[in-house]
Amino acid sequence: MTTLLKQNISKHISLSEKEAEEFSALFRPQTIPKKGYFLKEGDVCKFEGFVNKGLFKVYLIDEKGFEQILSFPREDWWIGDIDSFINQSPSHYFIQAIEYSEILVISKEDKERLYQNIPKVERLFRIMGQKSLIALHRRMSENLRKTADRRYIDFIEKNTRLSQRLTNLQIASYLGISHEFVSKIRRKISLKK
Amino acid sequence: MTTLLKQNISKHISLSEKEAEEFSALFRPQTIPKKGYFLKEGDVCKFEGFVNKGLFKVYLIDEKGFEQILSFPREDWWIGDIDSFINQSPSHYFIQAIEYSEILVISKEDKERLYQNIPKVERLFRIMGQKSLIALHRRMSENLRKTADRRYIDFIEKNTRLSQRLTNLQIASYLGISHEFVSKIRRKISLKK
Repeated sequence: MTTLLKQNISKHISLSEKEAEEFSALFRPQTIPKKGYFLKEGDVCKFEGFVNKGLFKVYLIDEKGFEQILSFPREDWWIGDIDSFINQSPSHYFIQAIEYSEILVISKEDKERLYQNIPKVERLFRIMGQKSLIALHRRMSENLRKTADRRYIDFIEKNTRLSQRLTNLQIASYLGISHEFVSKIRRKISLKK
Repeated sequence: MTTLLKQNISKHISLSEKEAEEFSALFRPQTIPKKGYFLKEGDVCKFEGFVNKGLFKVYLIDEKGFEQILSFPREDWWIGDIDSFINQSPSHYFIQAIEYSEILVISKEDKERLYQNIPKVERLFRIMGQKSLIALHRRMSENLRKTADRRYIDFIEKNTRLSQRLTNLQIASYLGISHEFVSKIRRKISLKK
């Protein structure tokens, strides 16, 4: 188990040495090169992963053929398509590495084994699920409630370090605005300075 | 505890008689008249509820002042704004009863007590969280991937009974399309018959 995963877990549950060993034995390390895929549309999400290093984009192709980015999982995040993973059904998402990434993956069967053998892991993933749900609700409600200008400014302010790792095109796709509009907002902001 | 809540729980965990008593003692019944609110924007979501009878709409007011419906919680669903409930922060959502409703509510403190006293409840809400996350992902990805016609037809087909309890305006708001567009699709469908 990596230090980051240990810290991630210990925020929510405490495992004995034996449990920690059992926990980490079910994960295996995987590296994904820049632009490599963790998941592609149409495939079944066979693994969930913990991001130890790197950055991903989760996106789907909309009805007009455009890439719509849903999230940017990075260090200390869990990745996967929960619908496809739980129901072992084809995914609608792509999960692609924006940077060279190192993850720890677990299969559905092994995750079930984890719940059976170490019941307090239920708590860990109950809390992780809540966090994902809150993040998705926030993204969705912000896209509906805020103007494009506001969304862009808030994103940059709240995600200073992340936004330096992204292109304008990626930020625009995540915020549901056009690339041209981002350039317009950036000009507006720099004029105000 | 109502029969419906018992069934809801027993799908995922089995409680002893004593545990079931402890569980139900932390919930209290509440009725909400038609058009009454379970939650309003700006308020803190102090309770989560299990819907025993009735139908709600969860919505927010978008930047143009329009109502955007996110879900229609009904019998056998849990309601609440998880972000506001967990973080005890003001909500961006309204949760309003479309029909006279009967719910069982629990406060944040009592839910924490539940996790402490009956650890297997973690499993119940871990699975509930997964379900909510899957539902939200599906709504979001369908709105992006499908044309308005397809979304409308799929919604009616998959939710025959629910759609009979809703107005066209409510369905349109949920699907992110205009009321006029719904009428147009309906005319198109009836012409094909």
